[in-house]
Amino acid sequence: MRASQFAINTMKETPAEAEIVSHQLMLRAGMLKKLASGLYTWSPLGLKVLRRVEAIVREEMDAAGALELLMPAVQPAELWEESGRWQQYGPELLRLTDRHGRDFCFGPTHEEVITDYARRELKSYRQLPVNFYQIQTKFRDEIRPRFGVMRAREFVMKDAYSFHADAESLEQTYQLMYTAYSRILERMGLAWRAVVADTGSIGGNASHEFHVLADSGEDAIAYAVDGDYAANVEMAPTFPVDGPRAAPTEAMTEVATPNARTIEDVTAALELPASRTVKTLLVVGSEAPAVALVLRGDHSLNEIKAIKHEAVAEPLTFIDEAEAPKLTGASVGSIGPVGLDTPVIVDFAAAALVDFACGANKNGHHLTGVNWGRDLPEPATADLRDAVAGDRAPGGQGKLDICRGIEVGHVFQLGDKYSRAMNCEVLGEDGKPITPLMGCYGIGVSRIVAAAIEQNFDDRGIRWPQPIAPFTIAIVPIGANKDETVMEKAEAIYADLRARGIEVILDDRGMRPGAAFADWELIGIPLRVVVSPRGLAAGQIEVRRRDAEASEDIAADGLFDWLDAQLA
Amino acid sequence: MRASQFAINTMKETPAEAEIVSHQLMLRAGMLKKLASGLYTWSPLGLKVLRRVEAIVREEMDAAGALELLMPAVQPAELWEESGRWQQYGPELLRLTDRHGRDFCFGPTHEEVITDYARRELKSYRQLPVNFYQIQTKFRDEIRPRFGVMRAREFVMKDAYSFHADAESLEQTYQLMYTAYSRILERMGLAWRAVVADTGSIGGNASHEFHVLADSGEDAIAYAVDGDYAANVEMAPTFPVDGPRAAPTEAMTEVATPNARTIEDVTAALELPASRTVKTLLVVGSEAPAVALVLRGDHSLNEIKAIKHEAVAEPLTFIDEAEAPKLTGASVGSIGPVGLDTPVIVDFAAAALVDFACGANKNGHHLTGVNWGRDLPEPATADLRDAVAGDRAPGGQGKLDICRGIEVGHVFQLGDKYSRAMNCEVLGEDGKPITPLMGCYGIGVSRIVAAAIEQNFDDRGIRWPQPIAPFTIAIVPIGANKDETVMEKAEAIYADLRARGIEVILDDRGMRPGAAFADWELIGIPLRVVVSPRGLAAGQIEVRRRDAEASEDIAADGLFDWLDAQLA
Repeated sequence: MRASQFAINTMKETPAEAEIVSHQLMLRAGMLKKLASGLYTWSPLGLKVLRRVEAIVREEMDAAGALELLMPAVQPAELWEESGRWQQYGPELLRLTDRHGRDFCFGPTHEEVITDYARRELKSYRQLPVNFYQIQTKFRDEIRPRFGVMRAREFVMKDAYSFHADAESLEQTYQLMYTAYSRILERMGLAWRAVVADTGSIGGNASHEFHVLADSGEDAIAYAVDGDYAANVEMAPTFPVDGPRAAPTEAMTEVATPNARTIEDVTAALELPASRTVKTLLVVGSEAPAVALVLRGDHSLNEIKAIKHEAVAEPLTFIDEAEAPKLTGASVGSIGPVGLDTPVIVDFAAAALVDFACGANKNGHHLTGVNWGRDLPEPATADLRDAVAGDRAPGGQGKLDICRGIEVGHVFQLGDKYSRAMNCEVLGEDGKPITPLMGCYGIGVSRIVAAAIEQNFDDRGIRWPQPIAPFTIAIVPIGANKDETVMEKAEAIYADLRARGIEVILDDRGMRPGAAFADWELIGIPLRVVVSPRGLAAGQIEVRRRDAEASEDIAADGLFDWLDAQLA
Repeated sequence: MRASQFAINTMKETPAEAEIVSHQLMLRAGMLKKLASGLYTWSPLGLKVLRRVEAIVREEMDAAGALELLMPAVQPAELWEESGRWQQYGPELLRLTDRHGRDFCFGPTHEEVITDYARRELKSYRQLPVNFYQIQTKFRDEIRPRFGVMRAREFVMKDAYSFHADAESLEQTYQLMYTAYSRILERMGLAWRAVVADTGSIGGNASHEFHVLADSGEDAIAYAVDGDYAANVEMAPTFPVDGPRAAPTEAMTEVATPNARTIEDVTAALELPASRTVKTLLVVGSEAPAVALVLRGDHSLNEIKAIKHEAVAEPLTFIDEAEAPKLTGASVGSIGPVGLDTPVIVDFAAAALVDFACGANKNGHHLTGVNWGRDLPEPATADLRDAVAGDRAPGGQGKLDICRGIEVGHVFQLGDKYSRAMNCEVLGEDGKPITPLMGCYGIGVSRIVAAAIEQNFDDRGIRWPQPIAPFTIAIVPIGANKDETVMEKAEAIYADLRARGIEVILDDRGMRPGAAFADWELIGIPLRVVVSPRGLAAGQIEVRRRDAEASEDIAADGLFDWLDAQLA
């Protein structure tokens, strides 16, 4: 491709509308143009990346035996009524009415449509297992669309749905998809993690999310430093501390802490680290008016875990400022487990403390040197908190660390949620009808483009991993107006690279070198080749990797060896 | 691909819902599944054809220098208000409202979106010409969707839009697109015609339609037997008859034609062919209360041509049964040009008649042996009718013939209709703003699939042209349960063909030969290879072209030569 023919259109300024790096860089590089809130046109440059992502997804889905089909974007309300989601789904479902007054939606997902397809297409267990997928435009009417294509209203998604005669078959296809997703992200040259996920409102039994790692990611992921384990922080279990507690060394002492309401206030007043204090949270109990949850001052309550505790009433309800003094004699900031007249549940980590500080159940006072089993009973313990870096990983995989990720894929074992609700049946081996089990597997194709940028950029622009770069190499001729052999050489290299099937762009725009280089760095082309009169005179060509500190001069006839080495 | 893994699902019965052959065969072959009125899921088999069509379209658009981008399907009403189409477009425009109450539509076409894109992307004439295209799902809320994907509500279209500094540049790109469309249909192995078309409601200056020829086509096309000329029948001009008229041989005679009201009645009563009679149609004139339009009895009035005549009032208004006698003294069935007290305009062909018959302006009577210049004045002539087979083609291209076609593509010179309405301007060469001229170029990608079937089928099923067939070859092993070398040989051929990059399907379903053959003939695979114990014993393989009368046995080691010959 010649740059003059490719509608390259970069901008220097960072557009005010863009809050995150990927959105800023996609606009600046000219990959996107906003049409309306949450609606974007992919320019020729942007679409090249989207198509490369799509192609890798398609190849791996095909290789895993999934069959591509194409369902309509517009879906009849009747099917959503069968599944119950017409009522359940909120305003994110874009509902519409056709000229005859019939209700439809612009599909955000296709469980209903594929289940309807399957119940008419599949007659026998012999047709199972089968895994259908599509790569298609979807719509989710986000209340506040932002972050460009990271959270657009209209987006491109690969969604797959599998059907099975039994749970073992579902598990097999689930594993195939897990492997396919791993290969997809690996082939794209991205750093990623598969994490154990909550199955959320969609229901079902087993689920993993696939995250592209990036400091700007919305989700915190706890992962094993020495193993494969990873989970959303909320999902990662924590464990009792190994070995016996140390012996107390301090006496329990009441200390005045006037005006200390937060953990920060208390630690400052007591000159103790937060990890030597505990906080006591009062919630409504399932069998008592209140239950006290005790955590280390530096830890966060995990509400999902708390709700699962049998002593805690569902939904989780905190006891407020007005009510707390009636139960404890103190306001919320001064409550502690010593002498408390409610059931007390202590997080594993808080239960391992010695000589710790806590509220004195007396306004403006705390206790220091408190010890379990001496100043108050040995505690009832539980896992109540979010995991943190340094926690023990499950399964003997060493310690956990925390990173941030952007969810780009999700695999679910749906079970029979949709097939049962929609009466999807096939004849089983014994001639009796069975309800197939389903899995579903989604990848945000357009989202991956943005996530890849969040992971790969610097202050000059995007740094595409080579497998999804819009072009692999940019050839920039310099001084072509003074020396005609420059353009001849550039054209010769261009022709050679094209003949080798390499995606190459020839910068024939005649711009100043600095401006041209800035464009290709902003756009993020992995390799750059510069042809100049000075270089040609010396039989040399200047080459540079986008991720290298500097360019280097190599012998002109060594160019292809250098390229082969970069692409290997 | 192995048939057992590809969800092949044919049906013997013709579905009652399908009115036309392509729809029937697509459902029977298992290419489509209806989701709701005008909404279809493309099965893996159907999608394979759709993708092959898409790929050819994309390759030719790229080769013609067009740049692929991707615009949102959902479009804001504001842009349609700027162009004026929010009001003009009827209920075929699927309008919808987002959660914030803002109006949008599901785009049936993208002139507004691309013009908005261009006005923000293009700053200078130096960026022109540029031609953007996309392959995308569109929606048209047809009042009565039918004929399957031929006239679906949701459909896949390739739409392109070009921008130009001047008319010459527009004409160049228009010709490039004309050539690209010709190549696309040629490469697909379809019989087709490019026809001169009316520019219709979209406006603009020049337009061609691309039709796939099929007896079932909705449109009649007049084409030059000895040349390239073709036009929609309504658009083809007719010409004055060459040379002088023959001398009269009969005397004008009044004949009683009681109860003769139609041309058929009159020709039966007079024992004359319709081509020796004229019919006289009274319409409201632009300067007279009525104007008589005179055509040969076997010709049809072309209303578009009639309206363009200066003597005819717009809109075209026929004078009815009640009014006609007041103006002519006779009812509609007995009107004729002799002695008529209104302006008379005579079609070129009617003006060439001698000794013809016409109404006598006296109820129940006609005149025979009528001659222009003797019994009534030499006529004022015009082109008033639809062309018919045997008419002279324009430009010395011999005679016209008529065929039927299915419109699958359309190229337009839009001019500045949208760019002016939407204030799309770029700086011209002289530094002053200019309004770019636009062209637009559409291909119905999903429609081509149906049109290809309408052109290529027989009583056994579809006969795909090889370039768009879902698979090029089906390998059918027979008697594999009795002779294990059959499957070995079939697998070996399968592996060899795949290695050669040929799209092949191996029928590993173990069905009866007759049922298997019927499937592949219904699905329309161009070539079939049968491996059987009997054949193997004789060192032979049975091969058959889908369009051949019978199969043939060839030497097993000559298979690839035979295939190469078929694919050449």
